[in-house]
Amino acid sequence: MHVITAFGVGRVMRSKDEKYSEGDIVLNAFFPVAEYCVVPSSVLIRKIDPEAGIRLPEYLSCLGVPGFAAWVGIEVLGEAKPGSNAFISAAAGGVGMVAGQLAKLKGCRVIGSTGSDAKVRLLKEEFGYDDAFNYNKETDFDAALSKYFPNGIDIYLENVGGKMLEAVLNHVNPHARIPVCGMISQYNQIWTEREGVRNLLNIVGKEARMEGFLVSSYLDRFADFTVEMEDYLKQGKISSKIKIYEGIQSFVESLGSLFSSSKFGKVVIEVNKPR
Amino acid sequence: MHVITAFGVGRVMRSKDEKYSEGDIVLNAFFPVAEYCVVPSSVLIRKIDPEAGIRLPEYLSCLGVPGFAAWVGIEVLGEAKPGSNAFISAAAGGVGMVAGQLAKLKGCRVIGSTGSDAKVRLLKEEFGYDDAFNYNKETDFDAALSKYFPNGIDIYLENVGGKMLEAVLNHVNPHARIPVCGMISQYNQIWTEREGVRNLLNIVGKEARMEGFLVSSYLDRFADFTVEMEDYLKQGKISSKIKIYEGIQSFVESLGSLFSSSKFGKVVIEVNKPR
Repeated sequence: MHVITAFGVGRVMRSKDEKYSEGDIVLNAFFPVAEYCVVPSSVLIRKIDPEAGIRLPEYLSCLGVPGFAAWVGIEVLGEAKPGSNAFISAAAGGVGMVAGQLAKLKGCRVIGSTGSDAKVRLLKEEFGYDDAFNYNKETDFDAALSKYFPNGIDIYLENVGGKMLEAVLNHVNPHARIPVCGMISQYNQIWTEREGVRNLLNIVGKEARMEGFLVSSYLDRFADFTVEMEDYLKQGKISSKIKIYEGIQSFVESLGSLFSSSKFGKVVIEVNKPR
Repeated sequence: MHVITAFGVGRVMRSKDEKYSEGDIVLNAFFPVAEYCVVPSSVLIRKIDPEAGIRLPEYLSCLGVPGFAAWVGIEVLGEAKPGSNAFISAAAGGVGMVAGQLAKLKGCRVIGSTGSDAKVRLLKEEFGYDDAFNYNKETDFDAALSKYFPNGIDIYLENVGGKMLEAVLNHVNPHARIPVCGMISQYNQIWTEREGVRNLLNIVGKEARMEGFLVSSYLDRFADFTVEMEDYLKQGKISSKIKIYEGIQSFVESLGSLFSSSKFGKVVIEVNKPR
């Protein structure tokens, strides 16, 4: 049997480990997608304090994998600093919405690209982006970036690949950082049929750095991240949009929503209503 | 008047700066391509000791820009360590020949690609490459890399771009480093007509790092490099092939040779015979 696992928040029903008691709320990176499960206590990340003033789904969003990916991309690999010009693709997704807010908190000028006008509004009005554009309308990416980045791009959080990356490489500043979180435009194709990026030569003259990353390689920084992010959340400096699907039967629909342009923010399944 | 400048070695004819005297041999990053010239002493890098046992053209090869580029690529950005699998493109060029030898000295397994069978022999017999191939014969780069890198590629010193880079990205190991020194296959084309690289998505799963560099950004390391490289040269641990063109009238021919595949190693013009 193949079990699909996910980052999850759960309530302890019964425990043989004295560190955990019935009723504890726990965070785990490898919960099976299931209503009930048995897991070894060694895989639990930590207990969650339900009185901390942070709503539970946030532990899967700002404080979970997407928030951590945003933090690694913007703070570790992106080296965000005051005055940097940051561009976030897939900006209204789970990673992007946190990344833009983190970059703003570090003093960057932040522009996002996303797939609908409603999301453009969300980025500007709720997540504090300096500006944002709908890539389905501004189809000449090169012209769009000329308009939004008159002083060039210092940080590009890469989530889409293909033509957008190519356009970005025409606008990078010296020593630009391009943390590569994903390339969603490239996932559903045989690689030889994908759009090639033709201007990689630009990374020589601009001394740009492109670096792929998986959050699993940065787990030694997870505690630092948690302290910083909890602080932002408690101070109301970062917020997150979470789309909650109800019941385990919504799994396939929720997964599919990741690949349409329909979703906002982080997708979470609420398997059981909290009692 | 536009003056073409180059890294050069010269003999002082007359000096108004007491640090330099007639007859001193000096190294400079910005000599005009000329038989005689007047330069401010502030731009001279240093005096060369002609009794140090290092032939003068080597100060433009192993100890000059190509050697420094190789050192930055292999030791700084490539993080070469014992057991790393290193691939050097344009391996018989000025940078490549030094890069391969440096990688060997750091304990790497080193394979090179180059444009003729004679250069393949040179790499294996004179520069200590573990193996090398002629890219004009092994035209299926993907198959060639499967053969030469059964355990994948940890370091790729990128000098060519295009199809070779694409093939490499199918063979990179986790956390591979790709210092990008140049992309000579891409120089003579309008960018929209260049070959696109279609498999950049691989850098996410492999967490690969691609980083363009110019030696001018690493000048704070030039002294460290010089000490290390002079030591290698005096111990005979590194050698270099230098093609010397005679007389300033050979400038255009020597420049053209960089783009033809005909040259071996570093190209130097001997403007005046040493007296």
